[in-house]
Amino acid sequence: MSEAAQTLDGWYVLHDLRSIDWQAWNAALPSEKDQALSELTSLVSDWRAVEERKEGSLALYSVVGQKADLIFMHLRETLEELNAIENAFNRSGFARFTRKEYSYVSVVELSNYMSPPGVDPLQVPEIVARLKPTLPRSNHICFYPMNKKRDLQDNWYMLPMEERKTLMRSHGMIGRGYAGKVKQIISGSVGFDDWEWGVTLFADDALQFKKLVYEMRFDEVSARYGEFGAFYVGNLLTEQSLSELFK
Amino acid sequence: MSEAAQTLDGWYVLHDLRSIDWQAWNAALPSEKDQALSELTSLVSDWRAVEERKEGSLALYSVVGQKADLIFMHLRETLEELNAIENAFNRSGFARFTRKEYSYVSVVELSNYMSPPGVDPLQVPEIVARLKPTLPRSNHICFYPMNKKRDLQDNWYMLPMEERKTLMRSHGMIGRGYAGKVKQIISGSVGFDDWEWGVTLFADDALQFKKLVYEMRFDEVSARYGEFGAFYVGNLLTEQSLSELFK
Amino acid sequence: MSEAAQTLDGWYVLHDLRSIDWQAWNAALPSEKDQALSELTSLVSDWRAVEERKEGSLALYSVVGQKADLIFMHLRETLEELNAIENAFNRSGFARFTRKEYSYVSVVELSNYMSPPGVDPLQVPEIVARLKPTLPRSNHICFYPMNKKRDLQDNWYMLPMEERKTLMRSHGMIGRGYAGKVKQIISGSVGFDDWEWGVTLFADDALQFKKLVYEMRFDEVSARYGEFGAFYVGNLLTEQSLSELFK
Amino acid sequence: MSEAAQTLDGWYVLHDLRSIDWQAWNAALPSEKDQALSELTSLVSDWRAVEERKEGSLALYSVVGQKADLIFMHLRETLEELNAIENAFNRSGFARFTRKEYSYVSVVELSNYMSPPGVDPLQVPEIVARLKPTLPRSNHICFYPMNKKRDLQDNWYMLPMEERKTLMRSHGMIGRGYAGKVKQIISGSVGFDDWEWGVTLFADDALQFKKLVYEMRFDEVSARYGEFGAFYVGNLLTEQSLSELFK
Amino acid sequence: MSEAAQTLDGWYVLHDLRSIDWQAWNAALPSEKDQALSELTSLVSDWRAVEERKEGSLALYSVVGQKADLIFMHLRETLEELNAIENAFNRSGFARFTRKEYSYVSVVELSNYMSPPGVDPLQVPEIVARLKPTLPRSNHICFYPMNKKRDLQDNWYMLPMEERKTLMRSHGMIGRGYAGKVKQIISGSVGFDDWEWGVTLFADDALQFKKLVYEMRFDEVSARYGEFGAFYVGNLLTEQSLSELFK
Repeated sequence: MSEAAQTLDGWYVLHDLRSIDWQAWNAALPSEKDQALSELTSLVSDWRAVEERKEGSLALYSVVGQKADLIFMHLRETLEELNAIENAFNRSGFARFTRKEYSYVSVVELSNYMSPPGVDPLQVPEIVARLKPTLPRSNHICFYPMNKKRDLQDNWYMLPMEERKTLMRSHGMIGRGYAGKVKQIISGSVGFDDWEWGVTLFADDALQFKKLVYEMRFDEVSARYGEFGAFYVGNLLTEQSLSELFK
Repeated sequence: MSEAAQTLDGWYVLHDLRSIDWQAWNAALPSEKDQALSELTSLVSDWRAVEERKEGSLALYSVVGQKADLIFMHLRETLEELNAIENAFNRSGFARFTRKEYSYVSVVELSNYMSPPGVDPLQVPEIVARLKPTLPRSNHICFYPMNKKRDLQDNWYMLPMEERKTLMRSHGMIGRGYAGKVKQIISGSVGFDDWEWGVTLFADDALQFKKLVYEMRFDEVSARYGEFGAFYVGNLLTEQSLSELFK
Repeated sequence: MSEAAQTLDGWYVLHDLRSIDWQAWNAALPSEKDQALSELTSLVSDWRAVEERKEGSLALYSVVGQKADLIFMHLRETLEELNAIENAFNRSGFARFTRKEYSYVSVVELSNYMSPPGVDPLQVPEIVARLKPTLPRSNHICFYPMNKKRDLQDNWYMLPMEERKTLMRSHGMIGRGYAGKVKQIISGSVGFDDWEWGVTLFADDALQFKKLVYEMRFDEVSARYGEFGAFYVGNLLTEQSLSELFK
Repeated sequence: MSEAAQTLDGWYVLHDLRSIDWQAWNAALPSEKDQALSELTSLVSDWRAVEERKEGSLALYSVVGQKADLIFMHLRETLEELNAIENAFNRSGFARFTRKEYSYVSVVELSNYMSPPGVDPLQVPEIVARLKPTLPRSNHICFYPMNKKRDLQDNWYMLPMEERKTLMRSHGMIGRGYAGKVKQIISGSVGFDDWEWGVTLFADDALQFKKLVYEMRFDEVSARYGEFGAFYVGNLLTEQSLSELFK
Repeated sequence: MSEAAQTLDGWYVLHDLRSIDWQAWNAALPSEKDQALSELTSLVSDWRAVEERKEGSLALYSVVGQKADLIFMHLRETLEELNAIENAFNRSGFARFTRKEYSYVSVVELSNYMSPPGVDPLQVPEIVARLKPTLPRSNHICFYPMNKKRDLQDNWYMLPMEERKTLMRSHGMIGRGYAGKVKQIISGSVGFDDWEWGVTLFADDALQFKKLVYEMRFDEVSARYGEFGAFYVGNLLTEQSLSELFK
């Protein structure tokens, strides 16, 4: 395979966004609500147990605005496990109070633009940890899919490798300026979903999402070559905020 | 962060557009309607109390045309508060007579294109008041999201800072010509929602929206670089017009 | 305001397109149908009375094809009146047999491209009559929204005023060739709805719509700068054809 | 009218695509199904009688894939007749087992690019027969709407008449190569629907659709100037296959 | 027909994507579920019998993410057979637990870019086997539709045949690098559906989809001329995983 197309791939990712059917929820009996919430809690516990065994991870956030109410971000070793997660959710008693809104299938990815030559990156523990990460419990999440443009003279894929490397390096420098403020997970979705990458950001201060994405937009990689899908922003769902949501 | 990307950010904003399920409303018993309206009134009172404490603000308008019936524009210090507002609405007895139509998440923003050098804008009371405003009760509202284009040679983000400053200054002059007629609130949504900015206009004479937006369209900033989403226009909902709507 | 952006504005316009819920209609009892139709007839009478007082106007047509069944085109002095019309319709017993399909908010507009200098157009009775018109009862209606393009070198808003004037004059000549065959109402929607203009054509021979729009498409204003939305074509609903529709 | 925009126009056309509500159908009683099918059969008989009187025509096909189940292509002298057809269908007992999927309004059209000068085409019986055709009962139908592009330097409507004529002549030659294999009906929809033309092809061997459309795609008229909507392909519904569909 | 447009065409293809109505499924009685699954199993058996007789083929996979739950890929000699498959499914007791999500109609195609001159490809058994293939039972499926671009100077259909041949040859070399890892079925849909081709990939390791599609994206054929629709990725449904899905 040509150098240009090499990536390091880690766990598969499913972003699963659901909205609440509030009409059904508000009309439900307390016993039905209890049953539904207990089934949701039980699913979440199962997924947290997988996370503790380092066999996957889960981020659970509410979504601000009408696009969805809940975002489940699941990481697993295989697509079969992601499918099993969906099916377990769909067969649960909680599912009938939800509606599908959006999903995204991808795989955690590190690009090869920045790896030094002569090093096997899969021998570097930090790299392995980034490919199979335990997702943080930051206050906020931001998710969006994106492409690199192929539009007449603004065509990323027609640029020589060296030029792409240089552009990505300067792009990466912006991200590094947010170290400690924003944690960024890039997942590749070429062949899996409708955009080429998914970007998931985590931060305790949501304003950092805006600062980071806006600053990058002036960088040539985004300015000339970035094509962005919908943006989803959310708040961490702790056990307490989850129960408040459905009280 | 580079000078280009600096903005001043104030309160978070949620534009929450809902339509009425008229079939359900028309079929409801008078007692059900009373109960629903009293729950809506109670929510609005709570939000007005927050406004009086200067901890947020609310604009409440009807929408002309089929896109929605009601527009709630909420301002708050945090995304968590905006989320709590949505959830309180969704759990209310009024919600079952409504359907989600559109929402927009952003943060009140002042660009740095016009601020004089050497001044800390957050020490200027007028600027702080514009970042955390009490929304006016003008007769009409106009809301639309927008981008700056990145299309081959018409790429805002590839322009040098000085050129953008010059263009924005002349653009701002048009807005200033409408002082006293149109109040304009710009909110940034990069990283929060699908467009880069939300524009909310308030005026007693709705025709001023058309005059302002149309005049700006001939200005290079809009003519070459503006990309516009859907436009929503509405009428102020006073206590009286609200009760007439649902009589 | 710059000369370029000056327009003359008349009545506000609401195009309100609805489809019939035939399943509900076919299942209704004769008494329910009678009640619904009598409420519709009563609304139409009210609107015709407003028209006779020269305080507004109504065009009522069926729509050919699946996009909608009915098109109500309402003209009024204020947005509040248009909103009141919608609400009266939605609260009526007829509304439950309909579904929203599309709406458009605009204001009757005459451009300044063709007005001779030194004349106050609002003193010209013909111009006032065109700004606040009584809609014709031609056999057919055609409605479509449109923009002027802003696409790289094909950017209407970057053209000098003189060039736009020249182009519009030749464009207007085509329209004049259809005098007596097609009546044309242009309404501006910048700041009110998703396109910049609404075009409503009336003709006794529907083929004239095709001839006019097709001939204009070869004119540079449309060929290079026209951007068109959906087209809706319909047949006049008289008292008789309305009752046949629902017999 | 300028020569460029002259066309010969025949019968109005309504493509009416419906899907079956299989859930309702499968749950219906045999007597309900019989009643529904007998109403459908009765409508089709009425339409065939019109066809025999040479006052219109009907093509009835199933659709392959999920886009729709049935395509009714109706030809009539007036838009009022097409509207009456829709309404008769919607009020029938069969309609409740169907859902609207797509429709297209147009008028059978012969372009003037190929007509020899000095001949009144409406005196040529073959031309009249093509403007008011009886639709064939070929095994397969293919329908798609299309535009001629107006995209910067690829702008059909800015080409000189002579160049368009030359291009269309060579384009027509490809079509002629399929004589006896594919029957083609072009209908104009400028001013009537969202695209400029509808193309309806009939063939006994469906593969000929692909061969014809693909070969034309390399021809400059399509390659540079063609813009295509959705494609619908279907199988002839005879009395027998219709009853098998609903058995 | 010009050399450029020649293709070899095999079996017709229907990609039929359905989602499960989990609410209905979860609420169904065990006897209803048994009945529904037994009808599904019976349909699948019929289709496998056709496959064994070499008169068609079936690939049955689940879909990861919310776009659908099941993908049925059917191959048959005629469009009538594909239609009959749909109808049998829609009339089955299983169908009421499903919803339509997406479908695609095409025909297995081998391009003529790579065939040596002077050979009748239909006399080559390997080519016939590729035109009427038995679909593999790989662990994973990937399906996406695509076009060749016709965008100003990036216009595939305006390139000379020789240039297209050269480009396709180098493109094909990438595919060959995945021999044994990814099986690729190209089907043409010009005249049948909304894109020009459908691409269906099969692999035991899903990551190979990403590697292959991403590597190709840097190749000029894709980089400059490729236009891609939605991507669907799925897991093989064996008898066991099917029963687990619905347990």
